[in-house]
Amino acid sequence: MSERADLLIHARWIVPVEPADLVLEQHSIAINDGRILALLPQQQARQRYLAAKEVELPDHVLIPGLVNLHTHAAMNLLRGYADDLPLMRWLQEAIWPAEGKHISPGFVRDGTLLAAAEMLRGGVTTCNDMYFYPDAAAEAFDAIGLRAVVGMTITEFPTPYASDADDYLRKGLAARDRWRGHPRLGFSLAPHAPYTVADATLERISSIAGELEAPIHIHVQETSGEISDSLAAHGLRPLARLEKLGVLGPETIAVHSVHLDDSDIDRLARLHCNVAHCPTSNLKLASGIAPVPGLVEAGVNVGLGTDGAASNNRLDLFQEMRLAALLAKVSSQDAAALPAHQALRMATLNGARALGLDDRIGSLLPGKQADLCAVVLNDLNTRPCYDPVSHLVYVAGREQVSHVWIDGEARVNQGSALLQISDIELLRLSAVWQTKLVS
Amino acid sequence: MSERADLLIHARWIVPVEPADLVLEQHSIAINDGRILALLPQQQARQRYLAAKEVELPDHVLIPGLVNLHTHAAMNLLRGYADDLPLMRWLQEAIWPAEGKHISPGFVRDGTLLAAAEMLRGGVTTCNDMYFYPDAAAEAFDAIGLRAVVGMTITEFPTPYASDADDYLRKGLAARDRWRGHPRLGFSLAPHAPYTVADATLERISSIAGELEAPIHIHVQETSGEISDSLAAHGLRPLARLEKLGVLGPETIAVHSVHLDDSDIDRLARLHCNVAHCPTSNLKLASGIAPVPGLVEAGVNVGLGTDGAASNNRLDLFQEMRLAALLAKVSSQDAAALPAHQALRMATLNGARALGLDDRIGSLLPGKQADLCAVVLNDLNTRPCYDPVSHLVYVAGREQVSHVWIDGEARVNQGSALLQISDIELLRLSAVWQTKLVS
Repeated sequence: MSERADLLIHARWIVPVEPADLVLEQHSIAINDGRILALLPQQQARQRYLAAKEVELPDHVLIPGLVNLHTHAAMNLLRGYADDLPLMRWLQEAIWPAEGKHISPGFVRDGTLLAAAEMLRGGVTTCNDMYFYPDAAAEAFDAIGLRAVVGMTITEFPTPYASDADDYLRKGLAARDRWRGHPRLGFSLAPHAPYTVADATLERISSIAGELEAPIHIHVQETSGEISDSLAAHGLRPLARLEKLGVLGPETIAVHSVHLDDSDIDRLARLHCNVAHCPTSNLKLASGIAPVPGLVEAGVNVGLGTDGAASNNRLDLFQEMRLAALLAKVSSQDAAALPAHQALRMATLNGARALGLDDRIGSLLPGKQADLCAVVLNDLNTRPCYDPVSHLVYVAGREQVSHVWIDGEARVNQGSALLQISDIELLRLSAVWQTKLVS
Repeated sequence: MSERADLLIHARWIVPVEPADLVLEQHSIAINDGRILALLPQQQARQRYLAAKEVELPDHVLIPGLVNLHTHAAMNLLRGYADDLPLMRWLQEAIWPAEGKHISPGFVRDGTLLAAAEMLRGGVTTCNDMYFYPDAAAEAFDAIGLRAVVGMTITEFPTPYASDADDYLRKGLAARDRWRGHPRLGFSLAPHAPYTVADATLERISSIAGELEAPIHIHVQETSGEISDSLAAHGLRPLARLEKLGVLGPETIAVHSVHLDDSDIDRLARLHCNVAHCPTSNLKLASGIAPVPGLVEAGVNVGLGTDGAASNNRLDLFQEMRLAALLAKVSSQDAAALPAHQALRMATLNGARALGLDDRIGSLLPGKQADLCAVVLNDLNTRPCYDPVSHLVYVAGREQVSHVWIDGEARVNQGSALLQISDIELLRLSAVWQTKLVS
């Protein structure tokens, strides 16, 4: 008595993330119509299902696709454009002038194509993006097939993209309208940061986010200077000010959240906010080490982000998982802090939850969309293997990603991305922009 | 008027490390009899040399082979054997019992083969090893063709390998004798740590190291507990005690050196000691963050090490370069700290200098041995590329290593290791030991 399935994947290990800490050995996952039907022992799966396609992963661990909870995808064009500079010189002498001169729909579309292809090949199936020209970014995510929440970025400051907060908001909402109903694309309200957005704008954003049931994606308390400036200007720490303006809630993704005192952690927990932890970027810009063990203990939902390629410089969530686990240990002086299973959960289910997508993705529960990542652990760098979850976090690199599926469709196969745009074309775009940027 | 050369390599970029901060574009390196003859523009090179073999590296950066300044190679068999445990539980409940039960010449030979192959493929051409059965380790390094300084490990405590300090020393010296004159193998005195080796033994080691002109390879001040214990037992901090016993000098490699006060840094600088900085291991075991910018400023020579695969869990010097640069920035609150060129120098020339090998390796100066690593920067993850040295440190993974030469002999070609032992055989050894270790 066979049931039909579009796809049956037989894997050495499956780590569904829910239930927590579970590792299934020699199991299969059955997929139909883009969704997960069941996880079951291989023997049973081969008997129960008649599948249009079967994939054997004899040395692989299958996990939910990774969720990159904070990036500026288009900044792939500025990867390594300026490094080893103090934050303000980096911004003022390198990044902002380059952006002021070059950003355009074409820049954003091409940069986002490159970033989306990089992420996809590295096992990322969903990203939370913040940049200019959201319409161009959406076009690129759609072309690559990545699931994305595109930020409707808002600041008070003019850029080639928009003139003032109203203009940013209007253009963002118009882009959102154009992509409404897309199966893989959503939009967030993305006020850049408390220090670049005025009170009235933040209040308006809060009210619109409530109406649209959209996430609010905002950089918060990345540096200590930001806190002293806010105290001087507003008499409040940035998070306290955001609370007063109604910006903090379960829909809020507080990016970085490096400099937090107990009142900040209490506030994030009490208001059920989410944190996008970006460890590499926080180190590279010398911002600090976010108090992740404290946030987790307080019950705050923490996901992981790469930040943009100008401040990381890899859109590699394996690196962020590993670094998050390592930094949690050293900062809490406890080698047992943030164990491997928890780091994996941050990079998958917690990110999905922060985006309001945990009913659809982030773990391998029947009924969820089949966003999957297979990691092959069969070479000298990954052997022996006593625990595949330890290997995912402490050993594997993104180069071990062998297969990626989004909505049950193969997007990476045997390490090769199945893109509608060829690598040659993507590299050509990269070269064209490099020439422009150095001229 | 052509001159003869064995090998001519034409590269998009060459970073010789000496002189500092130099990046040569479209240059070639000429090699004869295992040594570097010259670096010169490609056009000139093609005219001047008649080479037996030419290699084109049109999208690659050529650098000195990396020097892994601290590892326990054989522990590759314990990669991921136990993680996320506090240091003392990790050692007492997992690592030491496994070692007590399993170490043997076969364990060390096979584990070292796996580690040497992993390192070689990741661009490491020299490693500084410390484990038991140095004769078996030397055999493995010789089989893979890696350059290595093998530790003559000494502790007061019995293991299956040796019964007491005298026995360790006698066996280590015997192994050294057997390999005397080997072109790629040297030996160090490797007292495990101040807290596991008695005063009299340390004095004896110091005197032997002087006679043999051998490096002294020792773990120092990895944890704060080690310092308070030393103060209680000896009335001195570990480094002060080592100085008193004559152990500190230009031949000394002080591994970890995480917990250092000003007197420690002054002592290391004044006595011209070297530090092997192992950032991943120091985070993973929650030891702390070594004060690398302070050490560099004081003039201490700092190289980079991976530590063993049980506490890292990758023997990946690209990861260590990146993490060293990132941690230096966050710990000094200065995004300009430890720039990319300096991180690369730590992973090459500084490591060579610590081993007393900087007259032979560590930079691409004419006359030095041709230990080389080529890194290919032509895929989506590495483009655009504005600065190849920034990319080496902040972007590249070991998976970008395309070619490795040791003494001018190709050891990795187009990403494939040219080993006398096949991958299949190495993976078989790994599987055999995994079965033994979990039984």
